[in-house]
Amino acid sequence: MVGFVSDNVSGIHPAIYDAMSRENSGYRMPYGDDDLSRVLDDRFSELFGAEVAVLPCLTGTATNSLSLALMTRPYNSVCVYADSHVYLDECAAPEFFSGGARQVPIGGPEGKIDPAELLKAMAAIGQPQSAQPAAVTVSQATEIGTLYRIPELHAITTVARNHGLKTHMDGARFANAVAGLDCHPSEITWKANIDILSFGATKNGCLAAEALVLFDTSYIEEARYRLKQCGQRLSKQRFLSAQLLAYIDNGLWLSNAQHANRQAATLAAKLTAIDGVELLHTDKSNMLFVKFSMAQIAALQAAELAGYLYDSGYMRLVCSWATTDEEVSKFLATVS
Amino acid sequence: MVGFVSDNVSGIHPAIYDAMSRENSGYRMPYGDDDLSRVLDDRFSELFGAEVAVLPCLTGTATNSLSLALMTRPYNSVCVYADSHVYLDECAAPEFFSGGARQVPIGGPEGKIDPAELLKAMAAIGQPQSAQPAAVTVSQATEIGTLYRIPELHAITTVARNHGLKTHMDGARFANAVAGLDCHPSEITWKANIDILSFGATKNGCLAAEALVLFDTSYIEEARYRLKQCGQRLSKQRFLSAQLLAYIDNGLWLSNAQHANRQAATLAAKLTAIDGVELLHTDKSNMLFVKFSMAQIAALQAAELAGYLYDSGYMRLVCSWATTDEEVSKFLATVS
Amino acid sequence: MVGFVSDNVSGIHPAIYDAMSRENSGYRMPYGDDDLSRVLDDRFSELFGAEVAVLPCLTGTATNSLSLALMTRPYNSVCVYADSHVYLDECAAPEFFSGGARQVPIGGPEGKIDPAELLKAMAAIGQPQSAQPAAVTVSQATEIGTLYRIPELHAITTVARNHGLKTHMDGARFANAVAGLDCHPSEITWKANIDILSFGATKNGCLAAEALVLFDTSYIEEARYRLKQCGQRLSKQRFLSAQLLAYIDNGLWLSNAQHANRQAATLAAKLTAIDGVELLHTDKSNMLFVKFSMAQIAALQAAELAGYLYDSGYMRLVCSWATTDEEVSKFLATVS
Amino acid sequence: MVGFVSDNVSGIHPAIYDAMSRENSGYRMPYGDDDLSRVLDDRFSELFGAEVAVLPCLTGTATNSLSLALMTRPYNSVCVYADSHVYLDECAAPEFFSGGARQVPIGGPEGKIDPAELLKAMAAIGQPQSAQPAAVTVSQATEIGTLYRIPELHAITTVARNHGLKTHMDGARFANAVAGLDCHPSEITWKANIDILSFGATKNGCLAAEALVLFDTSYIEEARYRLKQCGQRLSKQRFLSAQLLAYIDNGLWLSNAQHANRQAATLAAKLTAIDGVELLHTDKSNMLFVKFSMAQIAALQAAELAGYLYDSGYMRLVCSWATTDEEVSKFLATVS
Repeated sequence: MVGFVSDNVSGIHPAIYDAMSRENSGYRMPYGDDDLSRVLDDRFSELFGAEVAVLPCLTGTATNSLSLALMTRPYNSVCVYADSHVYLDECAAPEFFSGGARQVPIGGPEGKIDPAELLKAMAAIGQPQSAQPAAVTVSQATEIGTLYRIPELHAITTVARNHGLKTHMDGARFANAVAGLDCHPSEITWKANIDILSFGATKNGCLAAEALVLFDTSYIEEARYRLKQCGQRLSKQRFLSAQLLAYIDNGLWLSNAQHANRQAATLAAKLTAIDGVELLHTDKSNMLFVKFSMAQIAALQAAELAGYLYDSGYMRLVCSWATTDEEVSKFLATVS
Repeated sequence: MVGFVSDNVSGIHPAIYDAMSRENSGYRMPYGDDDLSRVLDDRFSELFGAEVAVLPCLTGTATNSLSLALMTRPYNSVCVYADSHVYLDECAAPEFFSGGARQVPIGGPEGKIDPAELLKAMAAIGQPQSAQPAAVTVSQATEIGTLYRIPELHAITTVARNHGLKTHMDGARFANAVAGLDCHPSEITWKANIDILSFGATKNGCLAAEALVLFDTSYIEEARYRLKQCGQRLSKQRFLSAQLLAYIDNGLWLSNAQHANRQAATLAAKLTAIDGVELLHTDKSNMLFVKFSMAQIAALQAAELAGYLYDSGYMRLVCSWATTDEEVSKFLATVS
Repeated sequence: MVGFVSDNVSGIHPAIYDAMSRENSGYRMPYGDDDLSRVLDDRFSELFGAEVAVLPCLTGTATNSLSLALMTRPYNSVCVYADSHVYLDECAAPEFFSGGARQVPIGGPEGKIDPAELLKAMAAIGQPQSAQPAAVTVSQATEIGTLYRIPELHAITTVARNHGLKTHMDGARFANAVAGLDCHPSEITWKANIDILSFGATKNGCLAAEALVLFDTSYIEEARYRLKQCGQRLSKQRFLSAQLLAYIDNGLWLSNAQHANRQAATLAAKLTAIDGVELLHTDKSNMLFVKFSMAQIAALQAAELAGYLYDSGYMRLVCSWATTDEEVSKFLATVS
Repeated sequence: MVGFVSDNVSGIHPAIYDAMSRENSGYRMPYGDDDLSRVLDDRFSELFGAEVAVLPCLTGTATNSLSLALMTRPYNSVCVYADSHVYLDECAAPEFFSGGARQVPIGGPEGKIDPAELLKAMAAIGQPQSAQPAAVTVSQATEIGTLYRIPELHAITTVARNHGLKTHMDGARFANAVAGLDCHPSEITWKANIDILSFGATKNGCLAAEALVLFDTSYIEEARYRLKQCGQRLSKQRFLSAQLLAYIDNGLWLSNAQHANRQAATLAAKLTAIDGVELLHTDKSNMLFVKFSMAQIAALQAAELAGYLYDSGYMRLVCSWATTDEEVSKFLATVS
């Protein structure tokens, strides 16, 4: 049992699996020329309350990197949070996809870009020896489970807009963020001046599906060719579109995330009450960082309930759409 | 009904779908740290009768391009068949993945590289103003359904080896080639001096699964990082490994291909007998190029049985693991 | 004596050398912030009779590749003459500078792109699996010394414009072309719808100086950063600007080229009169391709007067600004 | 008069100019097939007391970036000082040349990499989601004029060697470092385990010449092709080789640097004695960072003697081979 290690250890949600199964009879034209793929743009436009264009992708790394490649040329730079997944955990994929655009790490408290730090990086603009800032990317939820509040996003995208930068959101856990903030998805995307969103679905119930959502639809033509060139254009795309549609159908994306967040909240509440257990920067998402005693850690490991243990001594716990009440209870019993 | 348009219009073979379903219970560690992923190397080594390393990929374009990127640096060139999929239909993905390595188109009859033409391209070696040939890629089966015979492969790889080039095989329809040649898979790969194989599985029964098979296992370390960097490393890799294992289990890959080839052979035999119908460069694979009368074309289109129609007037017909006897009969009835 | 091997075996013209010497006293601000660099745009604008922006570069390969990189993104292609210098003799530099944009070789007689062949390549436009044509590059003069006539240029750029392609001219021997056609430089550039010109100066009297001339000045901002990023931005730029200004001052660029062309014309006229000597596709530039007898070749080699000898048996002879009447006479005497 | 702004505001040393002039008579074969270019390897091998291979380059940015590209593939990273020229002032050229290799900024006091900080960055090795460290680059002298002592270099290259990294030295001011340390050039290069050196010559008396010196000569074949592909291969290479040979002939490189350092030392000694004037991290090179009063700054600006003024209030002063005693005296008189 490795259920708290990450949300990507979960499987495929039954409703999504059923949607794939339904597509598995008869023939469909390939490469998006099928009935499901054709309605993606409309369905996501409804979801976001704005006209968007959607490119179905296979991994988060590709979705993020393709997004940033659309916004940059090799002499550009991308402002990115210094401890973010995009910067630290994608093996320099953005540099590769963009042909060399620099990633400039920006600091800030609670896993979030500090707008003042972002502003400082704008000093490179116009300097002929400096990579030119062209984009900023924020992770929502962040890599440590915190959430940008709506005004925080506006503060960042305002700096970006004022300096001609485009804006990207890494939404690998976008659903958890929307659930945690209890807002409409538009409020933390296009209404907050986000140009492209990596709308993650894999961690929250799909097999392998991410939607590259263009709020700035002027990218669509280039994006289609680059999707092919970078090896993300699926021949049997119907199965990818089926996942994405089932994911947003009936609000599944949101209810899955609400469930995951709730399980994390339960864990947090109960863990806080345990003597000696310490929680770090907890926010309304599906991720906790908890300091246990050595004995507790040993017990969790013996029970195969441990999360990832950092050098700092904190254990990361991630809940998913699949986390059951029994698993939460068993976890709590093990450390109590 | 669009069943003869391509083999990628088919769905997922039931045995493969079942294997995925079996993986969809409980948790698994991500990124290949699961039981199925761990046996990929061994299982493919058994299949090929040699120690190989396998990287599970998501699309053929990525598999081919990643393979060629491993073999090249930006100042290199890749010798490629002038009308091949890699050269014409992957949106310059190999150039992108390699950071600029030139693709040099090589001619030859019947959709296959002429070793004499390949030899001519070797004249660039040592010329400081020329991109340096570092690899040759062959498609087996070819884009027009022909097959390289074993001695033909040796003729090409001998030129390659004599000039220090590495060798790649685009095996999007590798199974159809093995079925058509009735040989052991080793005979057209490592025994014929192929270094890396793109072992296609999507067209022949999977959802989205290709195996990058390293016969030259010295590439493995670099390959693992590049797999991540190019966005092909799947978090829920178990579902990808499940497809690939089910695909090679019990010889499913081969029996699927034998079925597809047999359907194509039946079509070919019956079409040849029809007055006025003309077949082009037919070989023992799952693909035919057929010239029909305007009336026949119209009838096929009305019955939604038409394949892709080229400017040359030839219609491409592709059979797959899913092509039924009824579909073949209906097709023949429509044009008879 | 190797004077007919190429025009790049010549040295620096005295007037240009003097201009460099004049700059070699006292201090100048670096990176173009000097008096000479500041007037480049104006002086080239006068020369071409249009407002242009100029980037001083160091090599032809960099100038061409940077130009094409400005016009493309990695999923694009560049239409290029199949036997051109850009395609064959720059070690895949355009692919490298552009991060993967494909070069598509186009055929045509007399070393020149056939507009009908170019038109065929436009079929890739809109095909999602094809690299998208974004630019065409022509060499003026061509690699074999022929010249595009003004209507020939219009025929090509009309195809380009009609299909949304940008246009580049590799003018490594631009001066020889203008001299040969006896036209105004504008007539074969912006008036013929050329967007960017690599205005070669090295072969025709400079040390190492090429001007990247933007007729489409919208590229200027990106071009400045890419010039730096690709390592062509010179700190002591005054010496580069001094070369370029002296080169266009008093029509030196043109008189140098006229001299070279005249020497080649003399050679051609006299060689044609010699029994058994055969000239290939001679045009009004500074380059000849001549078939000599074995005895003549041996005599030329003994006298260190031979040009580059091709496998076809033709010898390339190139005259330069430095080719003296004595050298021409000596050459003719050797083969008479 | 802008003589203290940078050493690149100086011109070409007379001995170097004479060497170029001597090459400007008669013809020479291009692209390094001339007498001067042919002896570069031998002459630099003598200088360094080891067999080296030399590639003549045109700019420091290209020399550094080409060096790092030789050491990396796109999934790699380069450890670089956080405030270095390579990281901050080359417009992401290393990322571009390498096709995406990450630059990882490393901190440390006095403008120098702290080996302990470097060691921390090694934690990425073997992490499949992390760009893999493949090289470290040090600037000698540093961007702020400080010098790595020999043991400091060993400390860094020992970390590098222990972790499989290659080592590069940005020697834009290498001569000033050798002069300052009063050591043999081998002691801070190959004897200190440096694999490639960017041996700067432009700032210290050349027009535009840098030698890419390979102590690890296994890079030579690839380096030659990449030199061409990146647009640094000069047709009239004789003029570049003439500069480099004259530069190292009779120890000119060293005496030029000794002169520049001496002028800086004189300035430093005298400025320290002036009340209220404050010097920052002064070392034995040709560069000072000095805090003047507003009145002094105004006086210097009026006299056109000011150096570059940083936001911190410090003025950078750089002496060169061309800095005269009169200029130093005039400067001191202005601020006294």
